Amino acid sequence: MKIQRRDFIRNFFLTAVGGTIAGSQMACGHVNINTRTGYNKQLMLTFHPYELEMVHTFTISGYSRTKTTVILTEITYDGITGYGEAALPPYMEGQSLDTALAFLKKVDLTQFNNPYEIDDILIYVDGIDSGNSCPKAGVDIALHDLFGKLIDQPLYRIWGYTKSKTPDTTFTIGIDTEEVVREKTEEASPFKRIKVKLGVDEATDKMLINTVRSVTDKPITIDANQGWRDKYYALEMIHWLKERNVLFIEQPMPKHNLDDMAWVTAKSPLPTIADESCQRLSDVPALRDVFSGINIKLIKCTGLREANRMISMAESLGMKLMIGCTSETSCAVSAAAQLAPKMNYADLDGNLLIANDCFTGMKIIDGKITLNDEAGIGVRKL
Amino acid sequence: MKIQRRDFIRNFFLTAVGGTIAGSQMACGHVNINTRTGYNKQLMLTFHPYELEMVHTFTISGYSRTKTTVILTEITYDGITGYGEAALPPYMEGQSLDTALAFLKKVDLTQFNNPYEIDDILIYVDGIDSGNSCPKAGVDIALHDLFGKLIDQPLYRIWGYTKSKTPDTTFTIGIDTEEVVREKTEEASPFKRIKVKLGVDEATDKMLINTVRSVTDKPITIDANQGWRDKYYALEMIHWLKERNVLFIEQPMPKHNLDDMAWVTAKSPLPTIADESCQRLSDVPALRDVFSGINIKLIKCTGLREANRMISMAESLGMKLMIGCTSETSCAVSAAAQLAPKMNYADLDGNLLIANDCFTGMKIIDGKITLNDEAGIGVRKL
Repeated sequence: MKIQRRDFIRNFFLTAVGGTIAGSQMACGHVNINTRTGYNKQLMLTFHPYELEMVHTFTISGYSRTKTTVILTEITYDGITGYGEAALPPYMEGQSLDTALAFLKKVDLTQFNNPYEIDDILIYVDGIDSGNSCPKAGVDIALHDLFGKLIDQPLYRIWGYTKSKTPDTTFTIGIDTEEVVREKTEEASPFKRIKVKLGVDEATDKMLINTVRSVTDKPITIDANQGWRDKYYALEMIHWLKERNVLFIEQPMPKHNLDDMAWVTAKSPLPTIADESCQRLSDVPALRDVFSGINIKLIKCTGLREANRMISMAESLGMKLMIGCTSETSCAVSAAAQLAPKMNYADLDGNLLIANDCFTGMKIIDGKITLNDEAGIGVRKL
Repeated sequence: MKIQRRDFIRNFFLTAVGGTIAGSQMACGHVNINTRTGYNKQLMLTFHPYELEMVHTFTISGYSRTKTTVILTEITYDGITGYGEAALPPYMEGQSLDTALAFLKKVDLTQFNNPYEIDDILIYVDGIDSGNSCPKAGVDIALHDLFGKLIDQPLYRIWGYTKSKTPDTTFTIGIDTEEVVREKTEEASPFKRIKVKLGVDEATDKMLINTVRSVTDKPITIDANQGWRDKYYALEMIHWLKERNVLFIEQPMPKHNLDDMAWVTAKSPLPTIADESCQRLSDVPALRDVFSGINIKLIKCTGLREANRMISMAESLGMKLMIGCTSETSCAVSAAAQLAPKMNYADLDGNLLIANDCFTGMKIIDGKITLNDEAGIGVRKL
């Protein structure tokens, strides 16, 4: 892969310059045979906004949108580029394109000369300012991609995970008219699981489920996006959904209402998964008896470094694991997919909801998240 | 390193067999050009006891010894061998040479054909039986060493840690006569920190400290090995020690007495570190307000996989980190040293206390734990 390609280039140059290699090294500045040691080099971060066009108008409890802007990041070291992405969905409170760009301008990676030392580099990035989880994830993903390329291995392998254990992903159906929901459910036929956004009112929620069920009996997962305000109503809905082959309920109630949520989880016949209630690692311990599991998203938790820590924390607390995404390119989705082998559930369809993806990476094959063997996050720029 | 050597061999064979390579592959069974994919191979675990001879008779609160038996482990895959070790100190309750050998006989790694999938392999090993942390660590270390060799990187780099951030190690002085303690303190002159075992009685404990202080004023760390039974006495001793340039106190009180320990930690002018009270990851959350930090030892926590999880858990709880060892060869000590960049304190002198080390690996240079750049745990068999 990468190293093999580079070995080829190196060998080519070694051959080309023949016996004069020692003297020629300095002249051939772009070819460095000590690449893998990584000393006396600098890391360089660049970034630019990229406007995603949505395939459908996307509605969830509270708002809808047809376009969204992400920031694409690149970290370059010794001629190798790691790719990253910072999506900025409207529900990430206090974060916008402006705040994210302002944060990224403060990130000075040129002070680091060893790109393998990602733990300390990402501790530095996290410490620059509070909040800013989206641009922090943009830096984290690009750095991990670079790191994987330098080591010449996909990240899932560097972490010791089993490639074949990735779950099926859900395909998300937003809140829409009966006709559009039916259409989208039919479009979702390549997927083995459907995710339905609920949380409007009882009539709409039940219409959405009944419409999906009029097309298919494949398993459904629910994301209520904090839409249910009353614990008795929430529990009643969960029982109603349980009868309709639903697998789990994501964030049924408002994120800070943990007492009622614990009551619901204790009585729920289906697992409950924290999304808005679980942003970062420090949130996890308090959710132990409140939800059955957590939904990890890179833009919430600042990236892959912290995501892996949330995985081990949740595992040690006996909680289920889900990986999610937002509307973003195959870059960020493929990064998240590296964690998929550790997940009970996955909702990695964000790249499929946009019309102008500029990366190719992980694929959904027969409904299942399918990782490739390329180094880093496993993407190529289109 | 490894891969380069193997690439050389591969190229040599490719050259040697020339145009008939396709037909020759099967015949050259020991050379496989698809080594890095790891398919259709088997992992093989072997192990044998090895008796360590101690340089000094070693006394801590409760017992003393001159010899101890460890189990050396090896996991082989495709001609590459990972080395591991299971030490069995008497304080690991319920574990002995016999129980460890019996456990290792149950480990069937031949069911795995991908040595990169260490997460699932080690989940399997941990699930074979409860307890048995020492032989589990023996398997974990050998598998991580193999994994690092296959990826051709030292483990600290695979984990993204900063090699230069390793702390100084302490050199341990056991409970002994004034004369021997003075002698050992003089021997310890290459070290920048001295660890003193206390927990006998007030007169002996103070004699030990006063004797060390008659030789040197370098920082001391204390391991009381649960020896102090009364919280008021413990706090008084800690104040007395604070006046004598002591850095922290390890396990002052009995391991299950967490209420009194929390009282001591809240009032202590020095950090307190859990050793016997902290065996595995699941112990850590409850120790948050009981100790200032935890001492991670591979034989307690089943190895490097869980040790890294304890590191991230303790970091997220704001607890200090220490890495410890027991009397063992440079194999297990070098494995533990891979975690040293994340540690506030280290006590990795176990290999220096034995006369017949059969590995060479990490070095103590000018008192500091010094990692090499070799793949895996960075050891060579002597």
